[in-house]
Amino acid sequence: MVEKYEYGSPVNTQAVVEEIPLQSGEPSFGRILPGEGFGYICPLEKQDVVYGLGENVRGLNKRGWIYTHYNKDDPAHTEGKHGLYAAHNFLLISGRRHIGLFFDYPGEISFDVGASREKELSVSAPQADIVLYLIEEASDREVVKTFRRLIGKSYIPPKWGLGFQQSRWGYRTAQDVREVVKKHKEAGVPLDIVCLDIDYMDGCRDFTVSSERFPDFPAFVQEMREQGVRLLPIIDAGIKAQEGWEVYEEGRKKGYFCRKKNGEEYIFGVWPGKSVLVDVFDQEAAKWFGEQYGFLISQGIEGCWNDMNEPAMFWSLDAVKELWEKVPPEEYAKEEKLTSSFARLQSGIQRFQDNPADHDRFVHHYEGRTYTHRQLHNLYGYFMMKAAREGFEKGMPGKTPLLYSRSSYIGMHRLSGVWTGDNCSWWSHLLLNIQMMPALNMCGFLYAGADIGGFGDDCTQDLMLRWLSFGIFVPLMRNHCHLDYKPQEFYQFEKKEEYRELIRLRYRLIPFLYREMISAAENNDVLFAPLSFDFPEDEMARSVDDQLLLGDSLMLAPIYVQNAPGRYVYLPEDMLFVKCLDSTHFETETMKKGIVYIKAKEHQAFFFVRKGQEKKIGEVFTELSIGS
Amino acid sequence: MVEKYEYGSPVNTQAVVEEIPLQSGEPSFGRILPGEGFGYICPLEKQDVVYGLGENVRGLNKRGWIYTHYNKDDPAHTEGKHGLYAAHNFLLISGRRHIGLFFDYPGEISFDVGASREKELSVSAPQADIVLYLIEEASDREVVKTFRRLIGKSYIPPKWGLGFQQSRWGYRTAQDVREVVKKHKEAGVPLDIVCLDIDYMDGCRDFTVSSERFPDFPAFVQEMREQGVRLLPIIDAGIKAQEGWEVYEEGRKKGYFCRKKNGEEYIFGVWPGKSVLVDVFDQEAAKWFGEQYGFLISQGIEGCWNDMNEPAMFWSLDAVKELWEKVPPEEYAKEEKLTSSFARLQSGIQRFQDNPADHDRFVHHYEGRTYTHRQLHNLYGYFMMKAAREGFEKGMPGKTPLLYSRSSYIGMHRLSGVWTGDNCSWWSHLLLNIQMMPALNMCGFLYAGADIGGFGDDCTQDLMLRWLSFGIFVPLMRNHCHLDYKPQEFYQFEKKEEYRELIRLRYRLIPFLYREMISAAENNDVLFAPLSFDFPEDEMARSVDDQLLLGDSLMLAPIYVQNAPGRYVYLPEDMLFVKCLDSTHFETETMKKGIVYIKAKEHQAFFFVRKGQEKKIGEVFTELSIGS
Repeated sequence: MVEKYEYGSPVNTQAVVEEIPLQSGEPSFGRILPGEGFGYICPLEKQDVVYGLGENVRGLNKRGWIYTHYNKDDPAHTEGKHGLYAAHNFLLISGRRHIGLFFDYPGEISFDVGASREKELSVSAPQADIVLYLIEEASDREVVKTFRRLIGKSYIPPKWGLGFQQSRWGYRTAQDVREVVKKHKEAGVPLDIVCLDIDYMDGCRDFTVSSERFPDFPAFVQEMREQGVRLLPIIDAGIKAQEGWEVYEEGRKKGYFCRKKNGEEYIFGVWPGKSVLVDVFDQEAAKWFGEQYGFLISQGIEGCWNDMNEPAMFWSLDAVKELWEKVPPEEYAKEEKLTSSFARLQSGIQRFQDNPADHDRFVHHYEGRTYTHRQLHNLYGYFMMKAAREGFEKGMPGKTPLLYSRSSYIGMHRLSGVWTGDNCSWWSHLLLNIQMMPALNMCGFLYAGADIGGFGDDCTQDLMLRWLSFGIFVPLMRNHCHLDYKPQEFYQFEKKEEYRELIRLRYRLIPFLYREMISAAENNDVLFAPLSFDFPEDEMARSVDDQLLLGDSLMLAPIYVQNAPGRYVYLPEDMLFVKCLDSTHFETETMKKGIVYIKAKEHQAFFFVRKGQEKKIGEVFTELSIGS
Repeated sequence: MVEKYEYGSPVNTQAVVEEIPLQSGEPSFGRILPGEGFGYICPLEKQDVVYGLGENVRGLNKRGWIYTHYNKDDPAHTEGKHGLYAAHNFLLISGRRHIGLFFDYPGEISFDVGASREKELSVSAPQADIVLYLIEEASDREVVKTFRRLIGKSYIPPKWGLGFQQSRWGYRTAQDVREVVKKHKEAGVPLDIVCLDIDYMDGCRDFTVSSERFPDFPAFVQEMREQGVRLLPIIDAGIKAQEGWEVYEEGRKKGYFCRKKNGEEYIFGVWPGKSVLVDVFDQEAAKWFGEQYGFLISQGIEGCWNDMNEPAMFWSLDAVKELWEKVPPEEYAKEEKLTSSFARLQSGIQRFQDNPADHDRFVHHYEGRTYTHRQLHNLYGYFMMKAAREGFEKGMPGKTPLLYSRSSYIGMHRLSGVWTGDNCSWWSHLLLNIQMMPALNMCGFLYAGADIGGFGDDCTQDLMLRWLSFGIFVPLMRNHCHLDYKPQEFYQFEKKEEYRELIRLRYRLIPFLYREMISAAENNDVLFAPLSFDFPEDEMARSVDDQLLLGDSLMLAPIYVQNAPGRYVYLPEDMLFVKCLDSTHFETETMKKGIVYIKAKEHQAFFFVRKGQEKKIGEVFTELSIGS
């Protein structure tokens, strides 16, 4: 059962592709609040579990926190945050009833999931221009399937997208990349993709390659391809505002960059320095922007990752001007003011990054209307990816590009994957990775994953091995690391062979994983599910927040605590425990329904085969690797 | 067995009070590395657990991370950090042998506990002026007892220090405080202490009270006292550099403030704005500073908390001058530079806070020598507390003041307690609180605790109740919260009665806790111990990182996961499970050695009584409350 309600003048976000007749009156569950803006409220029963919200902090069960979707480039994904890079406004209330709620709205929106009042879910947004979809089915899984039918089939990457990806912000030259590939090949560590971060560009400009650091790039792409490795370059949202540079000049001449209400180009700071933003909501501008990706295709590239597309802004020209107008900079150096005003400057400047107030300063043109950026903010990543996807389809007809994005809105799941942004080398982020997968899947993102080992902070060997032990089951499998932190390629650690065996194990799993993923996409199903999806009557299963079902045959229970020799696992039915000693040897043990403490060394991946699915273990392990 | 080795010319940190004869040659365990600075290295066996390091991030078992002690005002206590506000340089290697290592050194020092090489502990410091104490005993507990004998008896607060403390940065007026007390009294929530943050001061100046917001402070102190509540004001390290203010003028005239090598006063920024630092290493300056606390005593105050004493610095005058000299501020406003240089300014200014480079700029005078601040940095909090304690002893003879500190070095445990600084309202910080207690105890700090509910970020009701359920067992029990976040007094939540019952339960526990604490202090023992202290042969007990022994009779296994109805507990022997339904009703159940899954509602504190100690449960619950 689907109900659709419209309030005000909603933006066409393109999230939903199925035509649903509009309903009037009050929704059959919960109610719309009167007053300013949009407000929805519904009761939560004691035993209800609330799933969903896609990419966000905290557990599988979202109860007990306020989540706010306003996409942001904030690398500190702590429990205290309310949102990350994405706006996946879908919730699933699982209890005596099974209810799905999708709030289709591209601006800032908040979900108070029983945090302020234990037995109440309330949703609020500053504008009452919203479409609400209410789904009720007989089970959690059916709610998800109905929602996924509404939003359309999920993106399936080319098979090589399930290969292992090695990345680092800091592969500065072709030689750096050659070294990485060489070391993997020499040690027999399978590798399909090396990601290129902004290092490859000429002055952080999109659609350029540094001819100094990457001379004859097409030949280099080919050289890597001959070794079975594809290069996957980054594209950032901000375009360098550099006079004389053809991409900037052309976009400016044609009026494709975002402007302020007074018609001036909107200037902000990001990696290239002074930058502009393409108005990807405008069809013509988007088409032009998409065609720029043709540069990459002309170099032999078959995909890319879109980054900084919340869009991230370090500062805006207007904010800088206002700062210096309020207190002229020379004032700060006067002896008597040297200190009294410095604290103000210090704290003021810290607030420049991704300041929502800046988002009111410039506009987009969409379907004949003009919107402030703030109104459409959460859609920017989607429309940027749409332009990219169309650019790739034009330049690479008949082939599916490998695409994934940092920022997203529901709907993008039809076009590309997502990675979960700039996480850290924290054990709690391994857990977050585990807990985010089902929520991302519910919102359509099947090709998804977190940076394994963590992007920020230093990764230790034990964390890397434990993370890989989960990562081998995750479709998007990438080891990525920040310039300022300890490099974390396999050869940086003592246990190189243990690392290698995990990657080899991944490759043995790929045929199974790819098949499961395609099947999930075709059936509008999840790849990763909470235990309660299949054991809704089992109170203990419903409370488990750190184990996942994978397809209909496996259960995962990763170890995510440092120095732990094992972990407690709840088996909701009899299962076969499979411990992988390396990529070719494994031990099995039949286990009874109930609680067990499983032991596994850091490099020993393990999983459970569900009752009656034991034949799958044969399928999984007799597959050949797709290799390179 | 204790060995003592001296290298170079160590600073007398006052950490160790027992005379130990110096030894020459190589230590009997591990070895000193040749080369620049100080280096020590020793092997770790696979089964070794490494305890200690007092206040720091991560688990009970410190293996697998690099810890660096250089006290810092950094409120983001994430796993990626290497140290917090304190330098507790004591480690305990627990395996086939039981070895204690204390590196007595007041500058920056790093401990690589098997992070870079799995089977190696290495310790390094830039200067080779260090005293190494090596202890070997027959058990972990004996190592701790020997170490604690060396460093002297732990501070025991007055009994009211175990009462409940309510705090918030943001109690701006006497009326605010009255309201807090009134609400506690009306609802029957026991309360012994209201902490005053910097709000009470006049312009953030130490040893002043705002006469506008707290008129007739001595009368107000008395009024509160009559309601059974003591006020506990904050004192910060930085003294406002305000001409005409008597404290500043007197200190300056007498030369008590830290100076640069050229003799100029060292100016830095902190809450009062332009500030100076007392050279607490200088006996005369310290005596003068200690006497300033007499102002508080004269108002009827009986203790205080020392804060910002790492010392915290937002910026330094020299750094600001250098910034503007490098690029004159007016340059930043020139149209053509408005953006190109702004990013540099932005990132430059972000590095101003607590910059170690600033610590080379000014000096201390100690025992006839001159040291840069950087050399003595980790001792500042200790010497500031020593001055405070002596001031209180002079002004309040025969009475023990209630004192605790944010920054500390081993040795301070004889003078005061510590709270663990500006944590957050994170479930992981509840776990960190649990895991830090034994480590703090090993280093002598028995009167210790974390801000319950968390200081930064918003605290939810469930987190508050679960945290209280552990906090009732912790000697220093304080609910404290940051100005910018949701207030978290009991009356801010729906479940006020459940909160009240937990505080009442605490008061029933105080006589037991106080006795256990005094006994631990007398015996140089810990109050909280890892399970392995009493079950060294039990491999499973040795791996448990989230349960604690309390004294010799109880075991705690707090729930620290949101939405979890219970948790797994490992019982290393048969125990009696006691669940507190409220402050007067409890359920008991005898449980067998092994693994259990315990269920408890959010407000239901629970504990386990160890085998043969069942009579203690009677003792614990028949005690009368000390009340107010």
